[in-house]
Amino acid sequence: MRLRDLGEFGVIRRIERAAARAWPRAPGVVVGIGDDAAVLRPRRGEDVVVTTDALVEGVHFRFETQSPLAIGRRALVANLSDLAAMGARPLGCLLALAAPPRLPVRTLDALVAGILREGRAHGCPLVGGNVARAREVSLTITAVGAVARGRALRRTGARARDRILVTGTLGGAALEVARAERGRGRVRGVPAPRLAAGRALARLRGVGACIDVSDGLEADLAHLLEPAGLAGALDPARLPRPRGFDAACRRLGLDPERLVLGGGEDYELLFTLRPGTPSAARLARRLGVEVTEIGRVLRRPRGRTPPPRGFRHF
Amino acid sequence: MRLRDLGEFGVIRRIERAAARAWPRAPGVVVGIGDDAAVLRPRRGEDVVVTTDALVEGVHFRFETQSPLAIGRRALVANLSDLAAMGARPLGCLLALAAPPRLPVRTLDALVAGILREGRAHGCPLVGGNVARAREVSLTITAVGAVARGRALRRTGARARDRILVTGTLGGAALEVARAERGRGRVRGVPAPRLAAGRALARLRGVGACIDVSDGLEADLAHLLEPAGLAGALDPARLPRPRGFDAACRRLGLDPERLVLGGGEDYELLFTLRPGTPSAARLARRLGVEVTEIGRVLRRPRGRTPPPRGFRHF
Repeated sequence: MRLRDLGEFGVIRRIERAAARAWPRAPGVVVGIGDDAAVLRPRRGEDVVVTTDALVEGVHFRFETQSPLAIGRRALVANLSDLAAMGARPLGCLLALAAPPRLPVRTLDALVAGILREGRAHGCPLVGGNVARAREVSLTITAVGAVARGRALRRTGARARDRILVTGTLGGAALEVARAERGRGRVRGVPAPRLAAGRALARLRGVGACIDVSDGLEADLAHLLEPAGLAGALDPARLPRPRGFDAACRRLGLDPERLVLGGGEDYELLFTLRPGTPSAARLARRLGVEVTEIGRVLRRPRGRTPPPRGFRHF
Repeated sequence: MRLRDLGEFGVIRRIERAAARAWPRAPGVVVGIGDDAAVLRPRRGEDVVVTTDALVEGVHFRFETQSPLAIGRRALVANLSDLAAMGARPLGCLLALAAPPRLPVRTLDALVAGILREGRAHGCPLVGGNVARAREVSLTITAVGAVARGRALRRTGARARDRILVTGTLGGAALEVARAERGRGRVRGVPAPRLAAGRALARLRGVGACIDVSDGLEADLAHLLEPAGLAGALDPARLPRPRGFDAACRRLGLDPERLVLGGGEDYELLFTLRPGTPSAARLARRLGVEVTEIGRVLRRPRGRTPPPRGFRHF
């Protein structure tokens, strides 16, 4: 069976029923799927955080190298990671799905199941969306969250002498993609958005700037530092990699350092802290996740700096 | 110049600069474009209302029959109309733009200008989004609004004997599309989202259900009534049309009644009121817009019964 056999309202009803099974009753959701808009209820004294991210077939994923379930999971994770990087807790998400009428209904089901699975894992119910016909499949997700008023983590705010830290490990997502593209299996792993760590960071004193590593360490660090006329001095030996990463890269003829610096979609949090803030080990306990200090913020030297590596859309 | 000449970050910066010119400082926006997510501040005691809607090239619009400025305006209006139908005031919007690298930058500029123009007209700043490469152009907009806690207008809530009313006139948008498709000019008119009327309705007592007319009167009335086992008895003679509408339809060989009942995208508010609520004329003053009473809600008859003359059942 294909989408064209269900029709537009059939597709909507199918997504609605799957969401209702996953979330019979979601706290904070006043109106879910099925009205002109969703209604969400933040707590008193909270700001609303909202972000959108799209995965497009042939650009961000291919059905040949990734299961529809993993694609759905990844689509939501990309958004949850943005909420994490603001220090927000999720309230709900919307799915704008574009797909050709010949798409099998079981592919739709798996894409939606992936979104709902991550939503359940991270307290983010699917509360609405849109379906449209298109030549290629795309999933545009909007995630809505809440953060204590005025406490959102920002990309701006880094200063010279700040410490640069990162959660978890880097390069793993890029390695898995490279492996899949050489025909060695599909991309299966889906990174965990660092929501709890982000919320803990938003409560911490002395945070400079924060971003999630989606384009790649070098590119995302540039987002934090370049607009402020700053640069980062990184210690390549200290960049945290997954266990067995360097050997796996060499087996595929890849440069591990390039993958760690340029590979995106690890969805770790990259942030700066003022000097004198707690050690990485103490932070790790507080944030509930591995934390590594990887360098320090400097004033940018004058002259040309090479453009950062990372994914480029156009 | 084309998008590929700007690059991804060039496209983002260009949209960001245009938004900053349109909204040097937007009240209620804590963090706008340029961070991992936008941060918006509802007032105390407000719920958050969020909706998303996509316009896809070749499905919802064609550059041959509609200017990019009008397409951008329409993309935001579709979302603002959903906020209106919930009785919400806009807080901000996000644009997820997908486009081929060969798209001329002046087309991008006009699409964005259209969004910003409607945003300014209705107090809805552009606060973030996403850009992605794709084979066809699509604009997926998310609008975020706020409504007094528990006061959002719902699609559910109609009851038998409710009065059925609609703002403004119907069929005008469909007529313009039909005209453009016969090569008689481009689609220029962009309907106004009924935000003030929606907010006034949300304050009114005795409202049953509310929806915006995006699919067409017949289809949207069915959204309100069918799930509740209800039907609508409409008086076709009372359906409000634009001045000169019937004559213009006949010149094009179109059936005016079909266009009024089936044509979508007029973005008027269709709602039900309990019996004994104020007259259409008094409502019009209160809502600041033309209001017409077009029929009444009935319990849906079992089995098939021939519709009474002059009335139409769903």
